[in-house]
Amino acid sequence: MTSRKELIEKELPLYIENLNAPQPLKEAMLYSLNAGGKRLRPILVLASLNAFGKEEAIGMPAACAVEMIHTYSLIHDDLPCMDDDDLRRGKPTNHKVYGEALAVLAGDGLLTQSFQAVISLDHIEPAQKLRLISELVHAAGAEGMAGGQAADMEGEAKNLTLQELEYIHMHKTAKLLTFSLVAGAILAGAGESEIEKMRDFGQHIGIAFQIRDDILDIEGTVDKIGKPVGSDTHNQKTTYPSLLTINGARDKLASHIALAKTVLGELNMSHTFLQDLTDLIALRES
Amino acid sequence: MTSRKELIEKELPLYIENLNAPQPLKEAMLYSLNAGGKRLRPILVLASLNAFGKEEAIGMPAACAVEMIHTYSLIHDDLPCMDDDDLRRGKPTNHKVYGEALAVLAGDGLLTQSFQAVISLDHIEPAQKLRLISELVHAAGAEGMAGGQAADMEGEAKNLTLQELEYIHMHKTAKLLTFSLVAGAILAGAGESEIEKMRDFGQHIGIAFQIRDDILDIEGTVDKIGKPVGSDTHNQKTTYPSLLTINGARDKLASHIALAKTVLGELNMSHTFLQDLTDLIALRES
Repeated sequence: MTSRKELIEKELPLYIENLNAPQPLKEAMLYSLNAGGKRLRPILVLASLNAFGKEEAIGMPAACAVEMIHTYSLIHDDLPCMDDDDLRRGKPTNHKVYGEALAVLAGDGLLTQSFQAVISLDHIEPAQKLRLISELVHAAGAEGMAGGQAADMEGEAKNLTLQELEYIHMHKTAKLLTFSLVAGAILAGAGESEIEKMRDFGQHIGIAFQIRDDILDIEGTVDKIGKPVGSDTHNQKTTYPSLLTINGARDKLASHIALAKTVLGELNMSHTFLQDLTDLIALRES
Repeated sequence: MTSRKELIEKELPLYIENLNAPQPLKEAMLYSLNAGGKRLRPILVLASLNAFGKEEAIGMPAACAVEMIHTYSLIHDDLPCMDDDDLRRGKPTNHKVYGEALAVLAGDGLLTQSFQAVISLDHIEPAQKLRLISELVHAAGAEGMAGGQAADMEGEAKNLTLQELEYIHMHKTAKLLTFSLVAGAILAGAGESEIEKMRDFGQHIGIAFQIRDDILDIEGTVDKIGKPVGSDTHNQKTTYPSLLTINGARDKLASHIALAKTVLGELNMSHTFLQDLTDLIALRES
């Protein structure tokens, strides 16, 4: 895990540093890109390739692309007009450092550049690159993450049903996590049924990831999760524990993890690393 | 011109209407996409294909992609943290109608979806689609339009040199106009030297377009240009007339138009429609 994180963090800034663009904009883009985090999405690209017995390194540009998308979404989500967050991973948010205008543009720039990162992939046919771009559009755009964020904003003042809550997290969180796994499968030359199983697996761990997030907001500590605990309750946000009780949420988390592992078991491949990641998502403390 | 504009305005909303996404987000995206305008960028895609003797219709998805990018940039540029505009083409700006959060997401969504529009092109090889996407990233991202907007924000409080002003407009305006022409050339299967001539032509009409904009801000009427005149002077913005005098700006406009026409003359093709567009840009009243 650590060595993969290091490899990713070495590659990631190169996609921006080498651009012929105004220095302040590049700085704002790099600030958030280099701000750390779990790097879960890029690691999932590599883990998926690993599971199919392929060289992880060939997926690095796709891994960087998905992290650029994730970073853009954090910058825009933190804006005053969205979640209005001053801190992210213990550091001032992008707009706190560079101002809102540059933060908007840094997000726009990262989103745009992510597609170039996909194009820069080697060892893959043009038609497959187009498929990856299409998957990325679907996962990140109005039908995916941006749609999930819109639904989340829309639902903020309301008491959501479980179905509405699932819609939000499936789109806001699970679709991009799923892209990572699907991208690895496509890069590995997997067949359609394997790709669809990876999508299924991704959706289960995506929802599990979010349930764990909700539980940590109640049971975590500021030190460990790097942001105030109890903020969901304070903001009267609908969460899995608020709808299902904390034990109900725990059961649902366990059930998604079990389903994820079942899907994994159906795939005829080496899945130790993906299994470890699944446990990590279920049990993570931050 | 009018029939092309109508064709474009019929196609454009389909890229959004058919998305499986939250209704308010789709509405916000469609509001700005359907808000009219000259549709110059998509028309240039068609005009470029026409010049190479090709069926204009094959370029429609690329034409819609560039208009989606242009529309996203208007939504984000109008935000309070950027140019803080309440009106665009006589209508309330996106964030005035839908709020800032949805406006940010509508822009993000249009930007993301534009790449899918390129992918939906028919009659073109996957490698050529990737080239178009790469050109679009370059024209729209940190090395293009977003970079130009960042430089523009950065330069707002300063007296710019002519070189700095050219940098801003080359990136903020000319690169996307140029993309349209280059896209038409690529779709037409033009050779590299023809593509580069189109790029050269695009840069000249792009700068000419901006100089005309600056002149209209002084000599235009509110009725014709649909926004207050004299706003550049009021905001103490550096413009071509402020640096070169109004006659100097007129000379520079004429010189870019002449150069554009020279480049056009070097291309062995039917260029009546592109010539008409060049004159239109030089003489436009709105």
